[in-house]
Amino acid sequence: MCRWLAYLGSDIPIEDVLIRPDHSLLDQSLLARDRFVPGSYLGSQFRDHAFPTNGDGFGLAWRGRDGTLGQFRQTTPAWDSQNLRHLAAQLTSGCFLSHVRAAPGGTIAEQNCHPFVHGNWMFQHNGEINGFTQVKRDLTMDVDPDLYPFILGNSDTEVCFHLALTYGLADDPVAALTRMIGRVEQARHDHKVAEPFRATMCASDGTRLIILRWISPDATGDAAPSLFHSFGARSLRTVDGTPDNLPIDSHLVVSEPLELHWSERTWHEIPAGTIGTVTPGTELEMMPIQL
Amino acid sequence: MCRWLAYLGSDIPIEDVLIRPDHSLLDQSLLARDRFVPGSYLGSQFRDHAFPTNGDGFGLAWRGRDGTLGQFRQTTPAWDSQNLRHLAAQLTSGCFLSHVRAAPGGTIAEQNCHPFVHGNWMFQHNGEINGFTQVKRDLTMDVDPDLYPFILGNSDTEVCFHLALTYGLADDPVAALTRMIGRVEQARHDHKVAEPFRATMCASDGTRLIILRWISPDATGDAAPSLFHSFGARSLRTVDGTPDNLPIDSHLVVSEPLELHWSERTWHEIPAGTIGTVTPGTELEMMPIQL
Amino acid sequence: MCRWLAYLGSDIPIEDVLIRPDHSLLDQSLLARDRFVPGSYLGSQFRDHAFPTNGDGFGLAWRGRDGTLGQFRQTTPAWDSQNLRHLAAQLTSGCFLSHVRAAPGGTIAEQNCHPFVHGNWMFQHNGEINGFTQVKRDLTMDVDPDLYPFILGNSDTEVCFHLALTYGLADDPVAALTRMIGRVEQARHDHKVAEPFRATMCASDGTRLIILRWISPDATGDAAPSLFHSFGARSLRTVDGTPDNLPIDSHLVVSEPLELHWSERTWHEIPAGTIGTVTPGTELEMMPIQL
Amino acid sequence: MCRWLAYLGSDIPIEDVLIRPDHSLLDQSLLARDRFVPGSYLGSQFRDHAFPTNGDGFGLAWRGRDGTLGQFRQTTPAWDSQNLRHLAAQLTSGCFLSHVRAAPGGTIAEQNCHPFVHGNWMFQHNGEINGFTQVKRDLTMDVDPDLYPFILGNSDTEVCFHLALTYGLADDPVAALTRMIGRVEQARHDHKVAEPFRATMCASDGTRLIILRWISPDATGDAAPSLFHSFGARSLRTVDGTPDNLPIDSHLVVSEPLELHWSERTWHEIPAGTIGTVTPGTELEMMPIQL
Repeated sequence: MCRWLAYLGSDIPIEDVLIRPDHSLLDQSLLARDRFVPGSYLGSQFRDHAFPTNGDGFGLAWRGRDGTLGQFRQTTPAWDSQNLRHLAAQLTSGCFLSHVRAAPGGTIAEQNCHPFVHGNWMFQHNGEINGFTQVKRDLTMDVDPDLYPFILGNSDTEVCFHLALTYGLADDPVAALTRMIGRVEQARHDHKVAEPFRATMCASDGTRLIILRWISPDATGDAAPSLFHSFGARSLRTVDGTPDNLPIDSHLVVSEPLELHWSERTWHEIPAGTIGTVTPGTELEMMPIQL
Repeated sequence: MCRWLAYLGSDIPIEDVLIRPDHSLLDQSLLARDRFVPGSYLGSQFRDHAFPTNGDGFGLAWRGRDGTLGQFRQTTPAWDSQNLRHLAAQLTSGCFLSHVRAAPGGTIAEQNCHPFVHGNWMFQHNGEINGFTQVKRDLTMDVDPDLYPFILGNSDTEVCFHLALTYGLADDPVAALTRMIGRVEQARHDHKVAEPFRATMCASDGTRLIILRWISPDATGDAAPSLFHSFGARSLRTVDGTPDNLPIDSHLVVSEPLELHWSERTWHEIPAGTIGTVTPGTELEMMPIQL
Repeated sequence: MCRWLAYLGSDIPIEDVLIRPDHSLLDQSLLARDRFVPGSYLGSQFRDHAFPTNGDGFGLAWRGRDGTLGQFRQTTPAWDSQNLRHLAAQLTSGCFLSHVRAAPGGTIAEQNCHPFVHGNWMFQHNGEINGFTQVKRDLTMDVDPDLYPFILGNSDTEVCFHLALTYGLADDPVAALTRMIGRVEQARHDHKVAEPFRATMCASDGTRLIILRWISPDATGDAAPSLFHSFGARSLRTVDGTPDNLPIDSHLVVSEPLELHWSERTWHEIPAGTIGTVTPGTELEMMPIQL
Repeated sequence: MCRWLAYLGSDIPIEDVLIRPDHSLLDQSLLARDRFVPGSYLGSQFRDHAFPTNGDGFGLAWRGRDGTLGQFRQTTPAWDSQNLRHLAAQLTSGCFLSHVRAAPGGTIAEQNCHPFVHGNWMFQHNGEINGFTQVKRDLTMDVDPDLYPFILGNSDTEVCFHLALTYGLADDPVAALTRMIGRVEQARHDHKVAEPFRATMCASDGTRLIILRWISPDATGDAAPSLFHSFGARSLRTVDGTPDNLPIDSHLVVSEPLELHWSERTWHEIPAGTIGTVTPGTELEMMPIQL
């Protein structure tokens, strides 16, 4: 598994969610806790085959100066990066995505680190297209030939992003992402891939977040990757005990809550099989993904 | 914590202990299991504050061509390194050391990765000098001025190695390492460092291994880092089920056994507070460290 | 431009050609001299737009233990790599390829470093497919779907290699490489790419080298990348003046001679538009490439 | 040699001096031109032993949010860094230092990359303490024991910085830097180092730049590293021809001008043996360094 977060709201120092909370994304890079449930005896365990380390690179993309997007990616573990700490302390933004990657033994390259950026869109993913080597060629062939040369790495996520761009991400993001999900499911069917497509995804043009949580409808004995949402003013528990107050209009979407001991009143699980758009200052509404 | 292994015996492909066993050093880089005890209900847990990830660099040093030493170090996680897999498959040696480092948030540099090499000696360490920033200057000043410029990083281990070289590692390794341990304890005393000096160390000139396991005598509520020894022909359990038979004269010294389900008949815990020399084809004898 | 070398002959320490000569491949990584001509007033200059630095990664592939291939690649400059110096000193081989890459501002990744390895074949290239973004999709589509998922980076060379594998590199290397060249030329024609395809390439299965030097027949005002061959016993000038004698059966194929002051009696330029196979102990014969 | 720049003035996007000029610091990382003199026949040559490539790491430090300093350093070549391009485009600052390093075959580590930062001071250097291995121990021993543990790398520059901090950099920077220069010269004398100490240095607390240019008075046949200053509104020539206008109050101090074809009316050489303080909106005055 990987771990990601996305923020939308008033400008904040990026470190306020990336570094300072006691279970920040930086902390999750070293030791994610997939199914930590407050009060449970087994609270500190992670699930069966789930994997606590996300040390195979990281990335940050943000709406920056003049509305253009910045991007910073490295292949080393996030927890070791002095650069990441410095940048997160200096950069402020009202819309940013960040991701820590788990791909042990896989293909380590900056070009495979999320978030991906193309023009004024950024994109990140947790999960996987099982059987990707079987379906990769078909999916890649569907990418607009003009976009094809911009695929620089070999990850499933980059192909999904370029499919969504091909299907009109800039014009109707929900429709484009839905069509992309459907295209992947079609490829699974064409190549008789039994294992499910599992995904939480976030796309953003710097003004809104489009998020989805998915698992193939024919999946058995498996679950969609976790995804949580939190909206409004709240104070996050920090490593050093200093206050970390988020703005009243702040949205956070995260693979797992940024606090070790969290409350279901603050962090709401997003249902599997849904997609929605996070916009400034309004409640999030998720809708079923209709392929 | 970190994790290391040392091998002495007939030439073997390095991958036979570094990569192929089902709890190889590569596997330990991703998920060490500090106190795995076969048959225990809590067998898969790690201890209190112990930490399962050793992803902050790795290294390999080996007796190579014409008896000279080779060295390979990288700051990236061992589990991700395609180079390490290739080299371990191609290189054969009768004496080698390898180490995976845990220093999250610390100073990541090749110059801080173990094993360290100076002339025909190699050296590695698991543990730490607590209060190192307080005692570092005193210890470093004791290093032979001719050796001083060869200190390239900022780790406690590199200072210990150069102290041992200063104290005559090449002439009488047991005496030199013992004196180094004593010097560190003296510095702790001088600077009133309460937390203990914890160490398992291995020095080698390519023909023998000198190993020690230590914790400060005044330590309370803490233990020396784990250390195990195995001698003679045995077959290690492998990831893929293929046979992995070690030579009859092979010595292995490891932070933790290279097998997930191991037997105390094969892997013997080395007592804290002892030092000994591993030589080809003879049983290991450990002696108390007399400061 | 990039720079590469290939060796075939009796086993030698790899450093004897990679590190020790006074214009070794390591030296060429820092300061290549494209058109150094002994005795010329302008001898030390490099050509027009030619570029002296090959600092964007390097690689080494070699026939190793049991005839299997080893591979070592890093994205950092070769001249800085302590690992490369150590490995080249320790490894001996009778067949190896090595490459230093120039791709400033391009896509830096281990997956784009040469030599590429697939099964028992290794491959490297200097030059470029001009207009690659235009022809990339067509060329990639021609790769055998079973080989397609093995393309991990985004370089033109990796596509050429997989095309050659698709066209039967293992069965008839000269025919497969020739067909690959023709396929690239066809794509240039289809997409009306005016700039030429420039290439020196080397493929090897560890027992022989297949080499070629090429520039598109319709090129005007441009030349094929340089390529030289040297055969037999000779002593290379070294950085430190120590003798560096190559075996009597040794073949070297290089982008530029490994000596600063070289003789045309030792280093023979390979004609553009030719392909040939280097086999142990016999003279090299180059033949015209017939598309 | 290395190359550096320092900026003081109204806030500008960092890319305006780091990336966009036609001989930006990024360009100088790949191909510095030590003695380019406009109009000279030999204008494009570099001096004797001078070295055009600064590919052994880079760094950026800047006055950022709330007056605190940001820092970004990597060991890879600046010219390859997509991160550097993105950050330089997004970050704006009124005071920043940046450095590209040349240390081929040396010790490559983030901890050796300039600018160094300690508290609210940043520091960078071009040049070298010849005979550093001989004098390193003496100089390091003079560093305040409380500052000693903050030395993390093994460069001469980091020792010089910590000596200056020891000598009161925060209270009287010109006096502290002068005393540091004198201390190094004393060490050269004590250890009979014949080769000179060569340096251009810049220290800054984010509100002013203290700069110096130095060569040992007993140097023969060698020169101080180059250093240039430019003040006031001017338009730099850019790679892509777009306007790049600097503010009227902008100071630039650089190892070499940021333009390929530059005018002595704009770029003024700083005399060797002088030190001075750059403050906002006033002309620079350099004074002789009096040891």
